[in-house]
Amino acid sequence: MTTAVETQTSTAYQELITHAKEVHLLAGTTSILGWDQEVFMPQGGVDYRAEQMAQLARIQHEKTVDPRVNDLLQECEGDSKLTGDPLSPSAVNTRELRRDYDRKTRLPASLVEEEAKLASLAQHTWADARKEKDFPRFAPLLEQIVDLLRRKAECYGWAEDGEAWDALAEDYEPGCTAEDVDRVFTPLCERLRTLLEEIAGASQAPSNAFNETKLPIDQQSKFMSFVSEAIGFDYSRGRLDVSTHPFTSGSHCNDVRITTRFSESNVNDALGSTMHEVGHGMYEQGLLTEHIGSPMGESVSLGIHESQSRMWENQVGRSREFWTWCAPKLKSYFGNACDSLTIDDIYGGANIVKPDFIRVEADEATYNMHIVVRFQIERAILRGDLEVKDIPDVWNAKYKEYLGIDVPNDAKGCLQDIHWSMAAMGYFPTYTLGNLYCAQFFEKALEDMPDLHEQFARGEFDSLKKWLNVNIHQHGRRYRAADLCQHVTGKPLTADPLMRHLEGKLKPLYGI
Amino acid sequence: MTTAVETQTSTAYQELITHAKEVHLLAGTTSILGWDQEVFMPQGGVDYRAEQMAQLARIQHEKTVDPRVNDLLQECEGDSKLTGDPLSPSAVNTRELRRDYDRKTRLPASLVEEEAKLASLAQHTWADARKEKDFPRFAPLLEQIVDLLRRKAECYGWAEDGEAWDALAEDYEPGCTAEDVDRVFTPLCERLRTLLEEIAGASQAPSNAFNETKLPIDQQSKFMSFVSEAIGFDYSRGRLDVSTHPFTSGSHCNDVRITTRFSESNVNDALGSTMHEVGHGMYEQGLLTEHIGSPMGESVSLGIHESQSRMWENQVGRSREFWTWCAPKLKSYFGNACDSLTIDDIYGGANIVKPDFIRVEADEATYNMHIVVRFQIERAILRGDLEVKDIPDVWNAKYKEYLGIDVPNDAKGCLQDIHWSMAAMGYFPTYTLGNLYCAQFFEKALEDMPDLHEQFARGEFDSLKKWLNVNIHQHGRRYRAADLCQHVTGKPLTADPLMRHLEGKLKPLYGI
Repeated sequence: MTTAVETQTSTAYQELITHAKEVHLLAGTTSILGWDQEVFMPQGGVDYRAEQMAQLARIQHEKTVDPRVNDLLQECEGDSKLTGDPLSPSAVNTRELRRDYDRKTRLPASLVEEEAKLASLAQHTWADARKEKDFPRFAPLLEQIVDLLRRKAECYGWAEDGEAWDALAEDYEPGCTAEDVDRVFTPLCERLRTLLEEIAGASQAPSNAFNETKLPIDQQSKFMSFVSEAIGFDYSRGRLDVSTHPFTSGSHCNDVRITTRFSESNVNDALGSTMHEVGHGMYEQGLLTEHIGSPMGESVSLGIHESQSRMWENQVGRSREFWTWCAPKLKSYFGNACDSLTIDDIYGGANIVKPDFIRVEADEATYNMHIVVRFQIERAILRGDLEVKDIPDVWNAKYKEYLGIDVPNDAKGCLQDIHWSMAAMGYFPTYTLGNLYCAQFFEKALEDMPDLHEQFARGEFDSLKKWLNVNIHQHGRRYRAADLCQHVTGKPLTADPLMRHLEGKLKPLYGI
Repeated sequence: MTTAVETQTSTAYQELITHAKEVHLLAGTTSILGWDQEVFMPQGGVDYRAEQMAQLARIQHEKTVDPRVNDLLQECEGDSKLTGDPLSPSAVNTRELRRDYDRKTRLPASLVEEEAKLASLAQHTWADARKEKDFPRFAPLLEQIVDLLRRKAECYGWAEDGEAWDALAEDYEPGCTAEDVDRVFTPLCERLRTLLEEIAGASQAPSNAFNETKLPIDQQSKFMSFVSEAIGFDYSRGRLDVSTHPFTSGSHCNDVRITTRFSESNVNDALGSTMHEVGHGMYEQGLLTEHIGSPMGESVSLGIHESQSRMWENQVGRSREFWTWCAPKLKSYFGNACDSLTIDDIYGGANIVKPDFIRVEADEATYNMHIVVRFQIERAILRGDLEVKDIPDVWNAKYKEYLGIDVPNDAKGCLQDIHWSMAAMGYFPTYTLGNLYCAQFFEKALEDMPDLHEQFARGEFDSLKKWLNVNIHQHGRRYRAADLCQHVTGKPLTADPLMRHLEGKLKPLYGI
């Protein structure tokens, strides 16, 4: 029998979820407008679209911080039927909605506005400074950003044994502290340096022939549609388009929009981008329809999201077995253009390691060094251990130390990325956390399905997709990233699986 | 010197316009979601998109009927500086926003909800009934719709010498009464019958060869991009895509989305659709940026909108001079496929007249008879002069009388169009009002620029576009349709220009 009190509490939960779905509907609308802007909107639409997006943000913010939500949360939190099992959907949704509500309401409106204005100004100045290779021009803005981020972190608060960075990273990687990152990045950095030194001294190297083969873009486009569908992207619940910077967006798990880009001279770049975004897209498609609009239907963190994109880009797309299946397909899309390439040329070409300056152009191994540098610098800045004006010197010294290269100017150095100008600190590490989670998940998947590579060689990718659906996607935000890792792999995150993966692949290729 | 009262009133106008723009931003967002749904959205997005659209409609409605608007309107209406010159932007905006506000607030929410539910149900039933060619199945729903529309008209009210139809048509053709329509349709119908009888008895007819030439769709698509840009569609402020049913949409004058469709066996159909939507699109692009979001930046009526689409589809696209320029271009898009066609074949093929059952497939002349039938029936129904159950008999008798054809079943008769099932009565006449306005405007344009046809033959369409920009587009909602016609052409709307156009073109083609 249902008592009056129980009914009331259950009603509170329903109202809470209905409210969350209202907010989610608006977020999905904003997302579609953003996608349209990047993919199809004519130039003339720019100014008005900014106003449309700002209006939706205002409406969404008003709904989000409605004090009624706090009342509903309190009712739900006091109801053991809802929250007694902490991993039940109702407990997870209550916990995560509380977290989101508290974070949103802790920031004063004036700070939010100040951040939006400062970030807008800083992005413009950053773009100019990068063009002119002139860090001092950007430095005063970055100082203001650091000051603002410290105040923002104060609003959020952090654990007694933590630091301001932790409070900011919470927006991207909930529950992850600088200490957590450092604990994994330090051994990663050390082992990676050794590997890169070995590669630098190797007498053997893969052929670059595949990367020098020019292939027509309209055929590349058809090839990407084929590959993306073959590895499991569901076109009845998503689409693939073209944009300057590839991204994954959409409204919900049944309408996922991914994009890629093409260059005539590098099909590998387009394939990497496409498989990367397909990985993000399949994570979104793997969330459950029944949870649309509530935290149980949302992804865990940027790091876990990146683990899914890297899974398909690197663990699958840069494996010899993938190319065993895929190389013969090149013929039907590109005719004789690839006839002279062997599997070794193609697989090798997808795995060349070459230390260079630009993060977004980096290979699978050196990429992580770019991230380590950024993390160490932003952490030091927020702790007050490093002054903004000294960033270029430290940056360049670290590139020399970790990658053995001399940064020629700040445009190719500390000015290359937009993130800090957008007031995003705590973001960069999620890229390498993604690589680390990816490798640890994939080792476990291989343990569960030892013939996975043989499946790839036959063009079968469904087992891996289903494994990810069951072990990662369906949980939504049930677990924090670190807990999910423990739950799935039985171990905390370490650098070992990623290093095993890189060493296992690269040493034979470089004859080490 | 500005007095306190003046400042306050001016502030009221600014607040009024700001409010209108807020509503317009939401409408633009809704419009982009609607466009996306028809053009690009994957199948999986259907249900959620409906919820997103419903949410935006709710938010927009709440804003629209905000009583604050009434206060602001009263302040503005009492300020002679704003409304003293009735054709000034401030007077027009005040007048039209008052009209819109009153109409929105006159309908009780219960009636709006009843209409939405009934229309949804009726559309499903109509689709089934059409499939089964079974009018009696749809009749009970249509009776309920007529009852609801009479109540809706009562809420709106109409002039003492008018009728319920007038109140409903106001949504599509503001200021237009059934008597106004009848005054032009009656002579149109008579003269058209005579012309169609002459054509039916003619011994000569244009060649159908062009319409039987199969042309590859990807080349048709490139051809449509070329033609649409050549006649003046601005791709920096709009785009052309493909959808099942062609339409024009977008956010505002600088972001206009048009669509077309292709059939391998009929490039003329795609060209007609494309030029039609380009005409709608150029009207939208011709509205002024400075008035975005206020009535001065909106189109007059569906009839005037249709006059712009028909201008480019029929007056330009079906003229001999257009083909003098365009026929040689076919070669570069379709190779030798059109080599055997003469200008007479192509121009003639675009102007074949053949009475048939289906409105949307009708030629330029018989099209208007389809509309006359619908108008006469919906007017009689609303007046109570005709019962719903008797529609098929009256419909079929009129098709026999006006077009000389025997309607084989209700699917090809009174069940062919969706409009009445959507509770839209007063809509159909706007199609033929568009043709009438179009012809009258074009005669005036020819009077102002006697060499217009020679310009078309040289591929020059800019003079006509500019003439439409200046005479029609830039006025926004300054004039009601009938007043705009009087203002531009110096005469009230009559059937004469359209009949002169049709007779002048068709008689030579049919050797009459």
